Amino acid sequence: MSDNGRLDTYARLAIEVGVNLVPGQDLQITGLLEHYPFARALAKAAYAAGARYVEVNYQDQHVTRARIKHAPEDSLDWAAPHRIKQIEDLGARRGAHVSITGNPEPDLFHDLDGRRVGMTRATKLSEAYLRQVTDGTINWTVVAYPNEGWAETVFGEPDLERLWAAVARAVRLDEQDPVSAWTAHADKLITRARIMTERGFDAVRFRGPGTNLTIGLIPSSVWITARTTTAWGHEFIPNMPTEEIFTTPDCRRTEGTVRSTRPLVLLGTVVRDLELRFEHGRAVEVRAASGDDVVRTHMATDEGATRLGEVALVDGHSRVGKAGITFFDTLFDENASSHVAYGQGFPEAISGGNSLSAEERQQAGINQSAVHVDFMIGGSEVDVDGIGSDGTEVPIIRGDDWVLS
Amino acid sequence: MSDNGRLDTYARLAIEVGVNLVPGQDLQITGLLEHYPFARALAKAAYAAGARYVEVNYQDQHVTRARIKHAPEDSLDWAAPHRIKQIEDLGARRGAHVSITGNPEPDLFHDLDGRRVGMTRATKLSEAYLRQVTDGTINWTVVAYPNEGWAETVFGEPDLERLWAAVARAVRLDEQDPVSAWTAHADKLITRARIMTERGFDAVRFRGPGTNLTIGLIPSSVWITARTTTAWGHEFIPNMPTEEIFTTPDCRRTEGTVRSTRPLVLLGTVVRDLELRFEHGRAVEVRAASGDDVVRTHMATDEGATRLGEVALVDGHSRVGKAGITFFDTLFDENASSHVAYGQGFPEAISGGNSLSAEERQQAGINQSAVHVDFMIGGSEVDVDGIGSDGTEVPIIRGDDWVLS
Repeated sequence: MSDNGRLDTYARLAIEVGVNLVPGQDLQITGLLEHYPFARALAKAAYAAGARYVEVNYQDQHVTRARIKHAPEDSLDWAAPHRIKQIEDLGARRGAHVSITGNPEPDLFHDLDGRRVGMTRATKLSEAYLRQVTDGTINWTVVAYPNEGWAETVFGEPDLERLWAAVARAVRLDEQDPVSAWTAHADKLITRARIMTERGFDAVRFRGPGTNLTIGLIPSSVWITARTTTAWGHEFIPNMPTEEIFTTPDCRRTEGTVRSTRPLVLLGTVVRDLELRFEHGRAVEVRAASGDDVVRTHMATDEGATRLGEVALVDGHSRVGKAGITFFDTLFDENASSHVAYGQGFPEAISGGNSLSAEERQQAGINQSAVHVDFMIGGSEVDVDGIGSDGTEVPIIRGDDWVLS
Repeated sequence: MSDNGRLDTYARLAIEVGVNLVPGQDLQITGLLEHYPFARALAKAAYAAGARYVEVNYQDQHVTRARIKHAPEDSLDWAAPHRIKQIEDLGARRGAHVSITGNPEPDLFHDLDGRRVGMTRATKLSEAYLRQVTDGTINWTVVAYPNEGWAETVFGEPDLERLWAAVARAVRLDEQDPVSAWTAHADKLITRARIMTERGFDAVRFRGPGTNLTIGLIPSSVWITARTTTAWGHEFIPNMPTEEIFTTPDCRRTEGTVRSTRPLVLLGTVVRDLELRFEHGRAVEVRAASGDDVVRTHMATDEGATRLGEVALVDGHSRVGKAGITFFDTLFDENASSHVAYGQGFPEAISGGNSLSAEERQQAGINQSAVHVDFMIGGSEVDVDGIGSDGTEVPIIRGDDWVLS
């Protein structure tokens, strides 16, 4: 297949299966400057699928770098009100959103003051975006664009074809009929999620090198997959690839220590060997071999940023896991490994959660925050168990194999 | 000078002399995707000069192309409300604005339906921007970024160095001290403008091949230059280069025919050999060898789009004129040749005009429109005369030489 053919097919998959665009919808695409060939292909695919208006927001990390270096400190967290209006208007019009990942320079800010990096987070914009996601006003997806800088990060050389092959396999572009492959795949994950929900565990526990973490669940917790619907009833797949089943934990009931098993790219900084210690749900210690300042300042965004909003289970047999690659991109690495996220939780992951008020969500233990950051904690050396309310322990993952049935 | 050195010097000139950024100001930069090296240099220069927040709006002509081809016709003129808020907020905060020109694909839309191209004009956004300019709420400048596509258009080959040399000379980057070179240059133009204002002509007349055009002026017309001040008293130079002196005509008093002497790039389309016939100030006939549909539909934006808002005089001895190049970029071509603009006029170009109400501006004959498009009508074969209220005719330009003293 020619390069353009491949890119156009990928764009159609993202528009028609991922975000599942409704004719007449407006679409906002957010990506880096370097993603422009894919942004253009997505825009074309969207208009071909009947979009009314497509706007691409190109982000430029080098402009952000200049800001972090020079702007007045009290302005760093400022979010331009028109950007907030953009996402709120999109929600009000029941629009669609595509985010492009695949960072050609994931460590561009590594030499800057980590505290200032962590402060540059546009809290109010992030809040507004997460509100649309949490309230289900928009259909959205996250999808990656292979590029040379990203390939260089992954392989130590700009082997773009190798990265394309890994990405294409992970998103099922290599299938004769990617659309039905996605349907079959989502059905499999839904079955696994149903099994977990029926077990009704009180907590899940991760044990491995540097990790002994117990995450308390909410009695009405439902395990879900990344095939979901908007509040107005439209189905979409918010991550491509997706291999996870996940729920929102009780944000007051995480205890113990955890060591991340893959690097995390956060705000232009590669965070390595992140270690956290939790007490009563709160991260009270943060350590890392690199990027610890960025995480610490980022977690100071609000109270919820120190607590977990997500716990997700992935075994080593996923297409992403079997690639045997560290992608330095959360969209991929979180689908090769069990993970947790600090920050905003998912109301739809408890029974009837979508109709709860903000106060009721808080009472139930669903975390609320302006941030949501996944990091990877699973792997072949990490055992995962479900713990019943009577204290019984049931193996879920052993040696990267899913063992619960 | 290294490429980066040259670009950084150019960016500093645009920030410190052109827009004349005030420490603490917000800056919006608008350019094409392909302008990113210059946008980054401008952002760096702005932060170094004390900017609080810099946002780059990267436009992607290929996304616009997909929109023109596929979007519902009644949506083509739609402007996203958040984009309107962006420029209005900038005005309310007394911000600064830099536009980057230099189109790598100036004729990208040539094969599309010219009527649909002309309709895709975001009228309300254009109005909001022109309102900030007319009301003097922002300091702004337009500056060009040399790139290979643009060089290819100009020279028929991607001779980027030759284009850089022409641009650097035109914007006085080749001077030891560009800042004082700009001051001296602006003073010279101001003297020329003063002479024209003191003459108090009732009209100016252009005569040449295909052109016999009389443009009536307003009794209180003032000839001004592109060194101006905001309503809050801050000086800036809105075009780099600039070689023109100009005023706003009486939009009811243009009569005759005019043939453009250089191509005009309008909405991704090269308009060649544009010919207009005016009656009582209104363009009643529009012809062109290419792009006539685009001009015609663009002029249908509003009543003011068919009338003139600007008449500007430039002789052939300007730095831009002496380059002997057709730049296919209005910022340059309008500074090599006398020109007029259809659309919005300049209240500051009549005595006391800035303090007039919208109604008083209209009564005075200052044109009002959501568009403002310059096109070139001067050259070695075009004579320009001033006509006194008693009918006397005074030569201003002969054979591309300025002869009025």
